[in-house]
Amino acid sequence: MPGIADVARLAGVSKATASRALTGTGYVSEATRNKVRAAAASLNYVASTSAVSLSTGRTHNIGVVMPYLNRWFFAEVLEGIQVELLERGLDLTLYDAKPGTRGRQRIFDDYLARKRFDGLIAVGLEPDDNELERLVSIGFPVVSVVGSGDATTVVEIDDDYAARRATEHLVELGHRDIAFIGGGDATTQSAQVDRRRVSGYFNAMKAAGMSANARHIVSEVTLPGAYAAAVDALGDARTRPTAIVATCDEVAIGAIIAARRLGVQVPSDLSVIGIDDHEFAEMFSLTTLQQSPREQGRIAVERLLEHLEDPDLPTTVERLPARLVVRSSTAALDPRRTTGAIDRREADHAR
Amino acid sequence: MPGIADVARLAGVSKATASRALTGTGYVSEATRNKVRAAAASLNYVASTSAVSLSTGRTHNIGVVMPYLNRWFFAEVLEGIQVELLERGLDLTLYDAKPGTRGRQRIFDDYLARKRFDGLIAVGLEPDDNELERLVSIGFPVVSVVGSGDATTVVEIDDDYAARRATEHLVELGHRDIAFIGGGDATTQSAQVDRRRVSGYFNAMKAAGMSANARHIVSEVTLPGAYAAAVDALGDARTRPTAIVATCDEVAIGAIIAARRLGVQVPSDLSVIGIDDHEFAEMFSLTTLQQSPREQGRIAVERLLEHLEDPDLPTTVERLPARLVVRSSTAALDPRRTTGAIDRREADHAR
Repeated sequence: MPGIADVARLAGVSKATASRALTGTGYVSEATRNKVRAAAASLNYVASTSAVSLSTGRTHNIGVVMPYLNRWFFAEVLEGIQVELLERGLDLTLYDAKPGTRGRQRIFDDYLARKRFDGLIAVGLEPDDNELERLVSIGFPVVSVVGSGDATTVVEIDDDYAARRATEHLVELGHRDIAFIGGGDATTQSAQVDRRRVSGYFNAMKAAGMSANARHIVSEVTLPGAYAAAVDALGDARTRPTAIVATCDEVAIGAIIAARRLGVQVPSDLSVIGIDDHEFAEMFSLTTLQQSPREQGRIAVERLLEHLEDPDLPTTVERLPARLVVRSSTAALDPRRTTGAIDRREADHAR
Repeated sequence: MPGIADVARLAGVSKATASRALTGTGYVSEATRNKVRAAAASLNYVASTSAVSLSTGRTHNIGVVMPYLNRWFFAEVLEGIQVELLERGLDLTLYDAKPGTRGRQRIFDDYLARKRFDGLIAVGLEPDDNELERLVSIGFPVVSVVGSGDATTVVEIDDDYAARRATEHLVELGHRDIAFIGGGDATTQSAQVDRRRVSGYFNAMKAAGMSANARHIVSEVTLPGAYAAAVDALGDARTRPTAIVATCDEVAIGAIIAARRLGVQVPSDLSVIGIDDHEFAEMFSLTTLQQSPREQGRIAVERLLEHLEDPDLPTTVERLPARLVVRSSTAALDPRRTTGAIDRREADHAR
């Protein structure tokens, strides 16, 4: 069987260059790459990954653990990671660690300990103490997108800022009766990111002297979940807020669809603002705080490779800004409305 | 460093059993597994994947290539594959081969040839001739979810049946002016699955003697893309069909949202039927032909492992049935309407 040395000799390059050209890792000019590949093809040479891995101590493989695949944020982060890894000639091994499943337990019990990758990116993982201990004890670099504590390097947006800025936008438009929708309450489990956003909202309401009006409409953080919660919460015009901050765009859109079904006009009866700039935001004319999950995935790969280069690098927390994008789901409060408790006839008239 | 033989001796089992217990491949009783893991832990034994792979000739890794991650069908198939692989102790290496990207080219040029996995699952790949040739020439088993030709074993739904049944449902409700929405026309690229569905629709219209009314509203196969196309196509009551078959639920929901915006009532002015039973279908009361992408992912893993066991197994094509789920987005045609070309005042009156 021909070896890499045979390929290198035929192509007239060093073994290292031939290896780089064939594995796609590290820089090789297009011309050299083509020459090496032609040589490999003419010799019927096929690289054995396992052999490469044993000799260099690197698998050229990055593990990615995430709890959901079928949500916009997670799919976008995954694409950002994938594009960046492909550029660098690295493989991506995916672990779908849905909370509470047997699969998740096996990932933490068995899979991670096998060390089939050089480093790990954990996306929105929120590991319990036991899981976090295992992650860290395995001893390879871990970068988190949306933090799992101080134990790893973290890339995320500033959730507190995003929720505060969203609330302030509504306050600037004259709204006083502003509710927050999305995430669980004290009795149900809530993701860290939703807890931080609801807290940013409460802080902004307090800063505006409107703590008395602040309230949290609990809902599942999905479009259909938010739709169901909003149908319940927005039905009565006497208790309906004039504006809503949603924990993310999927929740905001669920609320908008619920409003339409209830005959509540957005934005004249109800202003809605989200966080994300989801692919559906434009279609629903949604005002939102824009983030780029793809960019977060890309940065996570960069940080992880830095940690692989230098194992002594201290961990860092990087909080990216979210940017206000104003569309037409938010509008100035109708001056005749000073509270959510308005007369039904007045609301009908306003349409 | 302790080896697998030491672990096996301490646990009092054969080397093969110890290996199965630690890698999670093949059947081992829970009691034996715990015994072996305790032995491995007490010896500080960590399996070296690369060594395992070299000695057995298997990587315990399955490659998955798909063109999109951020769409319901693909995310669901991926979850189905992932759950099944986790159960069997196998890793999943993901390749996101978006059409026309440099990443896709690198996957076909470099990554697949590296053979870092034992077999490949290609989801909705539609490789061009050059790509298909490379896939097959690599020489390991490939299973396709949504076919890429006869070269591989295929798992998919019967698209022709699904579109015909959807059309027949509308015909049974008395509709004659039925349009199809979604996918490209002759001048733009269209996915194989959408081409088969539009053809199933045209065949059903022909069988019902309604070929003269058949028409295809071209749209991108995404929710926002279908929304935009439907806003254009449904605005004029004189040319509006009384019913629509959508190539998938995301397109159906885009059309429903467009109809609401245009003041067109679903189902009294317009019946809409999709294919999928998407997670949003319930929320939009969408009548649809139900499929299970997760189940397709699970079956694909099974088929692939059969091909790995027996390399001489002939390829097969498995077409799963789709099942009609009737909700309230479809209704009997108002008897006063016999064609889409109705008077505007009549349409307004009907609301």
